[in-house]
Parts: sequence; structure tokens; C-alpha cells
Amino acid sequence: MSAIRAKVAGRALGAGDRLPSIRSLASAMDVSPSTVVEAYDRLAAEGLIRARRGSGFYVSQTIMPPLALAEAGPRRDREVDPFWVSRQSLDADAAVPKPGCGWLPAGWMPEAGLRRAIRALARTDADLLTDYGSTRGGVSLRRLLLARLSEDSIQASVDQLMLTGSGTQATDLVCRFLLRPGDTVLVDDPCYFNFRALLRAHQARIVSVPYTPTGPDLARFEQILGSERPRLYITNSALHNPTGATMSLATAHRLLTVAAAHDLTIIEDDIFGDFEPERSPRLAALDGLSRVIRIGSFSKTLSASVRCGYVAARADWIEHLVDLQVATSFGGPSPVAAEIIARVLAGGGYRKHMDELRQKLTRTRRDVARKLGALGIEPWLMPRGGFFLWCRLPGEQDATQVARAALEDNVVLAPGNVFSVSQTSQHFMRFNVAQMNDPQTWEVLRRALKTAAK
Amino acid sequence: MSAIRAKVAGRALGAGDRLPSIRSLASAMDVSPSTVVEAYDRLAAEGLIRARRGSGFYVSQTIMPPLALAEAGPRRDREVDPFWVSRQSLDADAAVPKPGCGWLPAGWMPEAGLRRAIRALARTDADLLTDYGSTRGGVSLRRLLLARLSEDSIQASVDQLMLTGSGTQATDLVCRFLLRPGDTVLVDDPCYFNFRALLRAHQARIVSVPYTPTGPDLARFEQILGSERPRLYITNSALHNPTGATMSLATAHRLLTVAAAHDLTIIEDDIFGDFEPERSPRLAALDGLSRVIRIGSFSKTLSASVRCGYVAARADWIEHLVDLQVATSFGGPSPVAAEIIARVLAGGGYRKHMDELRQKLTRTRRDVARKLGALGIEPWLMPRGGFFLWCRLPGEQDATQVARAALEDNVVLAPGNVFSVSQTSQHFMRFNVAQMNDPQTWEVLRRALKTAAK
Repeated sequence: MSAIRAKVAGRALGAGDRLPSIRSLASAMDVSPSTVVEAYDRLAAEGLIRARRGSGFYVSQTIMPPLALAEAGPRRDREVDPFWVSRQSLDADAAVPKPGCGWLPAGWMPEAGLRRAIRALARTDADLLTDYGSTRGGVSLRRLLLARLSEDSIQASVDQLMLTGSGTQATDLVCRFLLRPGDTVLVDDPCYFNFRALLRAHQARIVSVPYTPTGPDLARFEQILGSERPRLYITNSALHNPTGATMSLATAHRLLTVAAAHDLTIIEDDIFGDFEPERSPRLAALDGLSRVIRIGSFSKTLSASVRCGYVAARADWIEHLVDLQVATSFGGPSPVAAEIIARVLAGGGYRKHMDELRQKLTRTRRDVARKLGALGIEPWLMPRGGFFLWCRLPGEQDATQVARAALEDNVVLAPGNVFSVSQTSQHFMRFNVAQMNDPQTWEVLRRALKTAAK
Repeated sequence: MSAIRAKVAGRALGAGDRLPSIRSLASAMDVSPSTVVEAYDRLAAEGLIRARRGSGFYVSQTIMPPLALAEAGPRRDREVDPFWVSRQSLDADAAVPKPGCGWLPAGWMPEAGLRRAIRALARTDADLLTDYGSTRGGVSLRRLLLARLSEDSIQASVDQLMLTGSGTQATDLVCRFLLRPGDTVLVDDPCYFNFRALLRAHQARIVSVPYTPTGPDLARFEQILGSERPRLYITNSALHNPTGATMSLATAHRLLTVAAAHDLTIIEDDIFGDFEPERSPRLAALDGLSRVIRIGSFSKTLSASVRCGYVAARADWIEHLVDLQVATSFGGPSPVAAEIIARVLAGGGYRKHMDELRQKLTRTRRDVARKLGALGIEPWLMPRGGFFLWCRLPGEQDATQVARAALEDNVVLAPGNVFSVSQTSQHFMRFNVAQMNDPQTWEVLRRALKTAAK
């Protein structure tokens, strides 16, 4: 391969020139013909040369795309909108510290279990490796999910559950099913910023309700249902993003009563559920999957690279959602992805991994809160679990300015207002405690606070 | 595990009962404590028992979901609409013959290369196995795709390409970007049935242009552009689905000229491109990715289980599409999926696999066409490649009735009108020649023709 590359680079072979025949090159280089075939095939896959059937290999006629794909990285002059944190953190170099991102470092994930599951996958049936799979997704994972839902006291039947490409895709699918452009949707204030981005894509009108340490402010919630008539309410159960708060049982009960009176549908996104020390009550359990739609994924606890989410809802809704998923992504989610997730969950190690992870996070939350406190940054509350701390900056500092200053120093933060529909979280910042191990991060944070204070 | 299962089944252990301690059971069964931990963890993953932290394992309180997930299979009384073939073929039992489906049998896919790629994946970096990955998708696959596009004389730069969850998801994303409810979209008649389902999901108004053996009927095409003002035209390049026809160079050129005059945007879905014996001209190559958007995937030639698609388009459109993909599925497609595909493509074996596959399909198309001819079923044209034969049934038979009759005998067919917006393909049927190996299929087809003729 390097011999041919050198000839092309050195213009000994030009565009459209025929390469030496396989036999002649094999004999000239004293290797087997199959070695030359392999090298030619790989060069053809790269696009440097092309095979013409029956007539050998030729140097490509067309201008070559860059062989090294120089990544420009995320644009830094973007508006600080709900896409800001996603784009800055997803596209940042691996070395860039990301206390603003919404996931754990690779070292905190169940790596051994994942590798074991992938090795087992390499030996599984050819059908599973190549076919589209069923429209509701892999059976083994759905079976495990029904058991896990039952642990949350959610009794779902087989026809009430389907797999999706991710948790976000699950929410998106439900929005496509329920919403028409201009429909009003209620979210928490603050809420997960991507709910805002997603609802924009649906051209929904977004209204918000203040979130308290025990759930949404119920008086305001009832008022908004009366005046704004939202079609849908989207919230997190278990551990709220970004605050880490947990809805109380009393709030959950009252909220569902009010929702029933106004015929409101609710999406309960359980994505952080497995980080709870003890299971808190779920809206879907109280409601029995009647007006509550339960959504979840494994991106936070198992792998975001092997992507898979799910929806549990009324059977007649699932039937429509399956049609919608067929129309918009043909078939269910990747059977290979569902199989890897199922194997990790079914292997005994996952529970132990989560036990250890929870303990590690409890320590880390405490340590990071103490260090933030030393900078005058105070958590709004101390969450029962998870990796987020929702914090007030000292001295009425503007979080967007602090985040911009930190980005100049190559640290991605998550400023409060990307989470806030009412734009009232300008003094707040969401910190991911698992992503703050690097002393450099703290230095940058200190400097950014000073710069922004000027 | 079976000892505990037996005790629960035999009511020796009831809901909420505490299981024997790990140490006592290990000693009673003469196994190591870690073996018992593993068994308990697996039973907990199944939902039969639950761990309470610090206090041991208990039989689950809640009613158990069925341990065997009885699949109901697809409903057979469904309307024969654009979803009909998808649902019947995706959800059918593996043993059901599916001449109506749109994919190759597992045995025709590059199984060895896939297994090799998955084994290599098990040894790759932890980051790749656990992180979300960049918003445009895995770099190795994008690099290979740029080279492949260049083989089709499509010179795309790095910022003109992004990966998606599948080819259908790519089309869906572009529709979200370009269409508003009520917008008019032009498709071929006949066209891939899922274009109809997808456009319905977007609440688009669908109009169609008759497809001829050399592309869409140009006179009608120009007329429709003038009278209906479609925002978008969606078509297949290379090998048209369902007809297997190839657009001529003259048609492509004329079509683009008319499109420019009416400012029409075009999605060119290249999904069957690799099945061509020689590359035919692509609209995207003529147009230089200005008004043509190129879409593709590897579901037909490599794996539909490892799902990944792509879009190549104007750089400013890609930038918007990336935001839309972040909003609706958070991040790009699965990095693990992109890595598997890239490894198979880069490994030299893929080209050889495709060469052999094309030869095998040429033989199979000829054989199946001869056998269909014996039943009076005649191909509309003999395609240059691929696995579809678009055929006219004998004696003005109604294809929907034939398909319903065949389904009674457990064979899934694809009746013409699911492909036809104008509902004028009632006497046509699309056959997948690679899925007609079973003599039983031919027996059922003969019987269904007789039944429907009554």
C-alpha cells in the first residue's frame, strides 16, 4: 500500500493510470498475489485507486478528498442557545474538560461488561447481525425492560413497550404523534435544554413552570393548565435535570389529579432513574400508563455510543408510534445495539457496577460541592443522586459570560439560561461533578469568574 | 438460578420473601459465593428477585411480566397501505418466506467481515464504546464515504457530509428541514412505499409523476412543476425502487434544468447504488450538490442491524441538519455502528463480496424471471442490477387480493398499489428474487393467483 501511495504522491503514477497487474507486482515485491489483492482492495476502499471489472486497477480520475479529515471543531462564536452546550461538548476535542456536558467519563462506564457483550455479539446468529429486526425492537431487551418497569411498580404489558433509537428519539416520536405546529407544551423552569431544542423543531409554543425542590410549583402548574391549555408536559422523574431534585409523592399525586382535570398528557423521562439511591415514586406508576408516557435510555449508565431508548405507553398509542417509527426510521432500533445493551443488563455485573457508581458519585458530589463552595458557588440543593449540581454563582455573576470566558480557555460549561424558558437562570450554572477531576478545570473556572466579574 | 426459579414456581418462595443469604446458599449447594452472587444478579436483571441494598435479596413483590415474551406477530387484518409490507415483513417470523421484503437473506450478507469488525470493536478505545461521539458521526466512516462519493464524481468537502441513524432517518431529517405541513412533494409513480409513509408523517401533500424505463416522464414532470409547485422531489438514483430502472444521462440533465427553472430541491436516495454493474450518472454529480441532496446507507449491502446512513448536501444545509439531529436524537448516529461499517468497508473483502453478490444476483434475476414467466408473470423491464423485479400479473389480476391470499399461506408479497400514489399499479407486484428460494413460496404463489382469480 505504501509503495503505491508513494508512486502516486511522487507522480510516478498519475490520475487514470493503470496499476501493475496483481501477478507482476506480487512477483516484483516477492509477496503472494492475495497480499497484493488485499492491498489494492484497501486502497480502493480509501478511494486512491479504482477497480474496473475485468480490466484491473487504475489510479482514481477524480480529485482526492483529504485523506486526513481535518476537523474544524465546534464554532465558538455561536449564540448561547439550547444548542450551545450540545454542540460545544459533543464536538470538543476529547482532551477538553467538559463540566458542562451531560455524561460520565468513559472510565466510569461498565467497560468490561460492554467488551464482553460485544465479544459475545461477534458469535451470535447471522440474522441478528444483518436483519432489520422487529418493529418493536429486540425481544431480550424488551423482556428485561418489562421486569425493570415492574420494579418501579409500572405494570406494562408486551404491547405497551417499544424500543427506539435513543431516549431523545423516543421523546421526538411521541411529540410527532401528539403535537401539531403551534400546540402549547409545558416544561419545567429550568429544564433539560434539549427539550427546548426538540420542541422548537416541532414548532411548539413552549411555556414553563418554576421547578421547586419537590417538583413543579403546583399553584402555577394548575394556573397554566387553565390559562395556556398545554397539550403536553415533559419532565424528568427520579432526578430532575438540571437541578437533581426529586418530585415528592404528594406533588406527584396532586399533579396527576390536576392533569386529569385538564386532560393533559405527560412525558416522564426517566433517564437518570438508575442513579437514585432508593427508587422514588414514578408518575407512570401512579397513573398506570394512562396519560403518562414513560421514556428512558441507557446512555448515562451503560453506553451512549451503543444507542437505544424505549417508550412505555398505552397500547393503542404504541401501535401508532410503531407505524411512525417505521415511516421515519424504517423498522425498530438497531437489533445489534439492543442485543449489546440486553447482554450487559442481563450479565450480573451491571447491578454491582451501579452500586459502586452511586457510591463514587456520592463522594464526588460532596467533594465538588465543597470546592465550589470555596469559590462562592453554592448548590441550589444537594441531590440524592446523579452527577449534576445546579449552582448559584457568587455576586450576581452572569453565567453566560463566565461560560464564554471559560471556553476561551478550552473548558465547556453549561450556563443557566440555556435551561430556562423564562431566561431567569442567568446566575446559575450546571456542573457535572464527574467531569471536574482536572486541576486545570478549577484554575480556568476561577479565572473565568474573575474575567466575567470585570 | 433454576433452583430459585423452581422454588418460586412451586410457591416455596412467595412474593416479598427473603432469599437465602449468599453464604448459606453457597455452602448448601457447594458452590462459591461468587457463583451465587452471579445467579442472584441475573435473576434480579430478569425481575424475578430484587436486591435491597444492605439487606439481601427478595422475591419481587409485583406481578411478574411473562418470562417468555409471546409475540403476537403482525396483525393480518390491517389495511393494505404503505405500512402493510413493512409491518408484515419486519414482524413476520424468520421462517416466513418474504418475496415482498426489501432486503437480502442473512446468508447473502458479508457475515465474515461483519464478525471480524465486531471482534475488532471489542478491543477498541473505551471512549468509542461509551461516548456520544461527534455530531457529524465517526471520522473513519466519513473519510471512506468522501472517497466513495468521489468515485461517483461527487466532490463533497468535509462540511458537506454527515452521518445519520439510517437512510430513512436521513430523508426524514431533510424533510423536517425543508417541509412545512401542507407543502407539496413529488415522488415517482411507482415509488418506494415508505416515501409515502414518511411524507404522510410530515403531513405533506403528495403528487406523483409516472416513471418510465429511463426515469420520470419528463413532459409530465415539467407540467407538474408548473402546476403543483412541489417543494421537493424524492427519487432513487442508480436502481429505482420498485422498478429497477436506471435514469438515463439525458433525462438526468433535462430534469435538473427543469428543476432549476422551478427552484425545486431533490433528494437522491442512492441506497441500491452498490448493486449496479457499472456506475450510472448521479443527479448529485451533475448538479454538484447544489439543489440535489444525496442520501444513502449500508442496510442493503452490509447490515440493516448495524444501522447507519448519511446525507451529503450544501454545507449550510448540513449545518442546520446537524442542529436538527442534535435536537431530535441528541448527537450523531451510534459511533459503534459507524465504526463497524467503516471497518467492513475498509477491510479489503467488501469489494470482492459485492462483485460476487452482483454475479449471484444476475443469475438469480434470470432464473426467477423465467419461473415467473411460466406463471404468466412478466417483468416490466429486466433491471441491470439489484434484487427487485417489478412484474405485471397475468390476466388483469388484482395484486392486493393475490397478496392477501398468499399471506393466508404465510408468504409476504408486495402488491403494486402500496407503491403507487395514483393507485394505478393494481396489476403489478414487486418480487425480491433473493427471497424466492423456497419451493413452498412458488406453490403458495401459484395457489394465491388461482384463489384471487376466482
